[in-house]
Amino acid sequence: MVDDRSNMGDMKSNDTRNHIIQVGAGLITQKGFGATGLNAVLTTCGVPKGSFYYYFSSKNDFGLAVIDTFAEEYDAKLDRILTDKTRSCIERLQAYFATGLETMTLCEYKEGCLIGNLGQELAGQNEIFRTRLDTVFTAWEKKFALCLAEAQANGDINPGLDPIDAASFLLSGWEGAILRSKVLKSTEPMERFIRVFFEHCLRCG
Amino acid sequence: MVDDRSNMGDMKSNDTRNHIIQVGAGLITQKGFGATGLNAVLTTCGVPKGSFYYYFSSKNDFGLAVIDTFAEEYDAKLDRILTDKTRSCIERLQAYFATGLETMTLCEYKEGCLIGNLGQELAGQNEIFRTRLDTVFTAWEKKFALCLAEAQANGDINPGLDPIDAASFLLSGWEGAILRSKVLKSTEPMERFIRVFFEHCLRCG
Repeated sequence: MVDDRSNMGDMKSNDTRNHIIQVGAGLITQKGFGATGLNAVLTTCGVPKGSFYYYFSSKNDFGLAVIDTFAEEYDAKLDRILTDKTRSCIERLQAYFATGLETMTLCEYKEGCLIGNLGQELAGQNEIFRTRLDTVFTAWEKKFALCLAEAQANGDINPGLDPIDAASFLLSGWEGAILRSKVLKSTEPMERFIRVFFEHCLRCG
Repeated sequence: MVDDRSNMGDMKSNDTRNHIIQVGAGLITQKGFGATGLNAVLTTCGVPKGSFYYYFSSKNDFGLAVIDTFAEEYDAKLDRILTDKTRSCIERLQAYFATGLETMTLCEYKEGCLIGNLGQELAGQNEIFRTRLDTVFTAWEKKFALCLAEAQANGDINPGLDPIDAASFLLSGWEGAILRSKVLKSTEPMERFIRVFFEHCLRCG
């Protein structure tokens, strides 16, 4: 039989760990992994500095937990949008891009994509981070490819496109457009990407 | 009349400054601006640590000089490729992408684009860097737009494309494809980008 008190203790411990991850994700997205100090994360969380190693074995372990948690939440969001049977595949893709535009405006162009940012910063230097980030990107591409293949099967988009090529193209283009928008401080590059992608690649504009 | 000896001194000083910039550019592209220590740059250059402030007023001043020097060299490369009258506009764009594939393979997927990397790292945090990086990206887009407009005037590409939209799309997509290739450790995303861009956007594949 489960001891209620220790169970409560575990829940509290999980809540604190999750709080550190969420705060960490925000700071890492803004400043990068290297520039995010653990003390700043813990101070923002109101967690005693000495207790970090109770939750994580190292800064890298913490960084990987941030990636895993973000990926889990983003996967659920992508599934919700890209398999929404009340909408056409084109409308689902439009809804996905609309959330990106909204997020970029809300953060005032200061953040961008956590996975893209970490890929830029760490992929060339750390194989464990690189493979973990690659797994996240690959999973996203698969979800986009399924949605594009469904659109194609329904006759809604350019029949000559290879859905896997197009999904890779969508992810690359969108990540690049987010970077360009961050540097321009305007959603214009994201809007141009969406326009060209729908009108000229998918040919459904 | 110019004093020859002081002239020689200026030349040597310029050579040293340029050497620090070139070494710095390599380290910054690999590790990022924040993670690049001035001591590492100077040690690699064989320049005494104390003399950094003879050449640059601050680390930011050095970072901006790295951007300016890189942009000047890259602009010259883009001009050489994109206005090469011995080739069609399509061939020029193909030649440009080919240099990117070659660079990515040569660095073993560890670097990517200096301007893209710095944009990801600094645009949200430092307005001086953001505007400087934006000026570089904007200049590249203009060169791509001119080449695409010439291709369109010659009847070589999709007449429905807006060259300015397409140039922004090209830059975003290529920057994102470089990032994705770095994370995958393969040029496949860059190759998929090129294939979809020529066949389905420009419609000249």
